[in-house]
Amino acid sequence: MSEYRGYKGNSLEFLKQNQITVGDTVKLLADITYSGIIMPRYEHSDDKHVVLKLKSGYNIGLEISKIEKVEKQHVTEKIFEINEKTEKVEGLPKILLLSTGGTIASKIDYRTGAVTPVLTAEELNASVPELSKIANVETEVLFSEYSENIMPQHWLKIAERIKKITKTDYAGIIIAHGTDTMHYTSSFLSFALSGFPIPIVLVGSQRSSDRASSDAALNLIGATKFIKENNSNGVYIVMHQDENDDSVACHLGTRVRKNHTSKRGAFETIGDVPALIISEKQIQKNMSKSYFKKDEFQPRINLDSKVALVKYHPGFDPSLLNQIVEMGYKGIIFEGTGLGHIGKVMYENVKKANEKGIFLGMTSQCIDGRVRMTVYESGRDLLDLGIIPLENMIPEVALVKAMWAIGNFQNIEEVKKIMLQDIASELTN
Amino acid sequence: MSEYRGYKGNSLEFLKQNQITVGDTVKLLADITYSGIIMPRYEHSDDKHVVLKLKSGYNIGLEISKIEKVEKQHVTEKIFEINEKTEKVEGLPKILLLSTGGTIASKIDYRTGAVTPVLTAEELNASVPELSKIANVETEVLFSEYSENIMPQHWLKIAERIKKITKTDYAGIIIAHGTDTMHYTSSFLSFALSGFPIPIVLVGSQRSSDRASSDAALNLIGATKFIKENNSNGVYIVMHQDENDDSVACHLGTRVRKNHTSKRGAFETIGDVPALIISEKQIQKNMSKSYFKKDEFQPRINLDSKVALVKYHPGFDPSLLNQIVEMGYKGIIFEGTGLGHIGKVMYENVKKANEKGIFLGMTSQCIDGRVRMTVYESGRDLLDLGIIPLENMIPEVALVKAMWAIGNFQNIEEVKKIMLQDIASELTN
Repeated sequence: MSEYRGYKGNSLEFLKQNQITVGDTVKLLADITYSGIIMPRYEHSDDKHVVLKLKSGYNIGLEISKIEKVEKQHVTEKIFEINEKTEKVEGLPKILLLSTGGTIASKIDYRTGAVTPVLTAEELNASVPELSKIANVETEVLFSEYSENIMPQHWLKIAERIKKITKTDYAGIIIAHGTDTMHYTSSFLSFALSGFPIPIVLVGSQRSSDRASSDAALNLIGATKFIKENNSNGVYIVMHQDENDDSVACHLGTRVRKNHTSKRGAFETIGDVPALIISEKQIQKNMSKSYFKKDEFQPRINLDSKVALVKYHPGFDPSLLNQIVEMGYKGIIFEGTGLGHIGKVMYENVKKANEKGIFLGMTSQCIDGRVRMTVYESGRDLLDLGIIPLENMIPEVALVKAMWAIGNFQNIEEVKKIMLQDIASELTN
Repeated sequence: MSEYRGYKGNSLEFLKQNQITVGDTVKLLADITYSGIIMPRYEHSDDKHVVLKLKSGYNIGLEISKIEKVEKQHVTEKIFEINEKTEKVEGLPKILLLSTGGTIASKIDYRTGAVTPVLTAEELNASVPELSKIANVETEVLFSEYSENIMPQHWLKIAERIKKITKTDYAGIIIAHGTDTMHYTSSFLSFALSGFPIPIVLVGSQRSSDRASSDAALNLIGATKFIKENNSNGVYIVMHQDENDDSVACHLGTRVRKNHTSKRGAFETIGDVPALIISEKQIQKNMSKSYFKKDEFQPRINLDSKVALVKYHPGFDPSLLNQIVEMGYKGIIFEGTGLGHIGKVMYENVKKANEKGIFLGMTSQCIDGRVRMTVYESGRDLLDLGIIPLENMIPEVALVKAMWAIGNFQNIEEVKKIMLQDIASELTN
């Protein structure tokens, strides 16, 4: 692991000359004095800047040509109380924590100055000491990706890893994941691991922060508590409920969306209250039904990513739809307007797509509410053209489900059938 | 205007045989007895059904082969008290109501049995008698389209019509519009008619209903009251605030979105409270700044619809982006994940797009919150690739603004500049 990861050319030279490396706490004098930790850089970065994580938790890029003075801080505080080996406490539930990357895994990493996000049980227990008091956590690093770089191939790897877990003594599985595409991953796992016997909980951190009050700790503790308290299996996302540090919200993995770019309570259950709300003092259980519609564990870990998400809008060029058809896509999920509409201008190419045997599903860009294509004549026309109304499935979930369905069922009629079958709470009343 | 509009073949024959036409109130005996009004059909409809608007306000298609008995109802109630000419009341503000179609215009239409939505002042005042007591409303039908069929060409027509209004004695303009794409139209008018001296208010109806409590009446009255009470110009959407019939919410036309497929309070101001809330008893004014950033009326009524909206997701095929580039698009608005990210897999084709001089703007599929591309290294990479972060502009608004900007400014540098300039409250702090 390089001490200069991502730095090259001038910026690498700058670090070497000043005898500082990634992870060092420094003061840099430019227009004003900046205090923070030298951060690793990304592979496509230029060689003109160093990146500093400020005390506020935000990163800043400083042009090296403008840095007048570099002062390396002597860090006296002990970052973590790291024990050689985490003590297992008898009687506590055993939890497997899989790390895939993202802010939650990076944070601890940056704090210690290490470069590749590596989350060991020791680091974890040291940074979130409350955790070891409520569970025995075993950890494993699957990969280290920001979640915008998580691909369907990663979903398959996570699902394959979980499928292999035959030990019955785990109370649940926690997946540390970047927040950007967490709800896509939770959807895929919901379909691929239908009926999996123990809860799977995705957890992330909205803010890369060095403050003690970082949401990473609360969310991890919340996820652990959730596994202990919730006796239902299923796939969930556990995150801050709001800007307070009092409670976490536990969302059904197919009914949740990231609805804000930055705030802690960014994740919301669409059209309903979260399944559980866990605070220090109480647990509010709103979940009334089972997550999976069948008890039997029936893994189907395949997918076909040749599914397009088409958000209709005034001025949408129907020839773009035609291109999608010509490119060999096997499914199209429309984000229609209102109750599930697209303009008449699209009809001819929709008909073509249908004739080619492409699965055509309708959701709404309103996001909340149910698609209903029988209210207006235009909706009926779309039904006649072969578009399947996907009830109250969230567009992103419909996309993932279509990838999964097409990957596991060969026949278009089977795909149509399975798309309207509730597998994992993606269709609710 | 045909009495059988949209009916053909067997279904046309059925109507003729039973001596009923569109607009008639009938009882049809099939599996059970259905009471309602015979509705017109849409051009692509089959010839096997008749469509009935039920008392509940919903439409139902009945297979003619299953209809056993047809009973035409003698309608004794007078639908509207239509005066030959609406009395103008001295001293009341004068309002121009432009109708473009949609549920709000269709409702009155269906009720009277007429087929093409035609909203005259007489019908309007008769159906919403409260209106004539608070304003002198002149009306004009621009076109009659469901709003999923409203195209950028329609935006231009509306803007051109409004631009011509030189009479200074109008207090404001109301546009009756289908709700599906109302927020796209309000965005375009905001940019095209920047600085227009009197308020422009779009108003629609979420539910096609024959009940007296239809939201059409409340929304129309609300829009009229809004014009009377609000002394700020700008473009607004006025709709039910919630499921109650107590209040309407007045949203800034560039900060609003249809967030629910069916409920009355479907429209919401994103990330803020509505500008005004008007109830029977009080008016709550939350609006603190001017809508338009410049007072001067500066119409720019052009657009170029060659702008694509690309919603990134795991599994997005970069070659689709390439197709968009090859198809000669001039702008791409990304709906990135989180703070404004797209996967590394896209970088190469983004670079190509940038080199071709295509405008590249970033918004977030989170919808709420601000794009910030300097927090993570991946965001910085995207900045290096030429993507412009569009702050807290709503994706749909960014799309419309890019169409408008590219249509009015030839130079890519000018387009980039104008996209980051607040014209009509589309960028807020």
